[in-house]
Amino acid sequence: MLTRKEFTAAQERAAGMIREAGIPVTEEELGRVEVADFGLSRLDREGAQILTLAATDRIAAKVIVLFSGQTLPEHWHPRVGDDPGKEETIRVVAGVLRCYIPGADTLREGFVPQGKQDAYTVRQELLLGPGGQITLTPGTKHWFQAGEDGVVMYSFSTVARDVLDQFTDPNVQRVTRIVD
Amino acid sequence: MLTRKEFTAAQERAAGMIREAGIPVTEEELGRVEVADFGLSRLDREGAQILTLAATDRIAAKVIVLFSGQTLPEHWHPRVGDDPGKEETIRVVAGVLRCYIPGADTLREGFVPQGKQDAYTVRQELLLGPGGQITLTPGTKHWFQAGEDGVVMYSFSTVARDVLDQFTDPNVQRVTRIVD
Repeated sequence: MLTRKEFTAAQERAAGMIREAGIPVTEEELGRVEVADFGLSRLDREGAQILTLAATDRIAAKVIVLFSGQTLPEHWHPRVGDDPGKEETIRVVAGVLRCYIPGADTLREGFVPQGKQDAYTVRQELLLGPGGQITLTPGTKHWFQAGEDGVVMYSFSTVARDVLDQFTDPNVQRVTRIVD
Repeated sequence: MLTRKEFTAAQERAAGMIREAGIPVTEEELGRVEVADFGLSRLDREGAQILTLAATDRIAAKVIVLFSGQTLPEHWHPRVGDDPGKEETIRVVAGVLRCYIPGADTLREGFVPQGKQDAYTVRQELLLGPGGQITLTPGTKHWFQAGEDGVVMYSFSTVARDVLDQFTDPNVQRVTRIVD
């Protein structure tokens, strides 16, 4: 869970980074940036800030912000009925994204959050700067970590059903609780 | 058709506008900006410059550039087999987009290209600035025109099959011919 104060501070910080990255957004949009702690209650280590620009029953376009030192937990997009699962292209706008996918362990720049070795199992490291992108096919496990200056990126995808994403860490809860 | 010289000049001009808009792109990407004259051979009036960032059999993300005074001809995305047709969200990054869709004729800021009254039939005018966006459902006729300073925008869509787009102007040919 997050306190209201933590939520507001993270939302404002993310809004500043989105603007700094040169992405034009409206005030209304900045006011609905989601702050996700994935139920882990340590937002500075594991979390993400997400602005959904467009979401229909066919596609989604989002801006994802990770603060310096912040990791978006390992997950994958499973098949849902007739949908083979979400396909997602990540494209970096500002900062460096450390992206981890299946393959040989090449983790060098990044780190697994302390005490979470079992929750981060794929460790092929890709470092993506501005203009760098990767397409993640359905079912592919992945996790993201910001470089030292944080990262701002787009996610272009097929329909997003975030609550159905599957996480390696059994403690993850996709819906963030905010307490006053 | 376009001459090689026209093609190169348009590609370089579009590349400059994309960079000026603050969109990070690689040199490789700038070198494959498409220049479309829609077979009309008057690129300064009717045409578009298009950079495909990502295209799979499920989604596409593009950057579309229109120069000042340039109009992207009226078209729509038809059903293709099991696909109900392309759904497209346009989001402006820089400049003003004059967007025309079905509805009451409110065309004021823009203009129908000279001698082309029959080829531009939908005339409800929407003016979108940076951060402005619209989602076009399949089958919806639409055309775009740049404001005075040109426009740079994203197109986030379901699978793009451009050669199957349908145009009101029977003279349109979607594949651009370049002559030396």
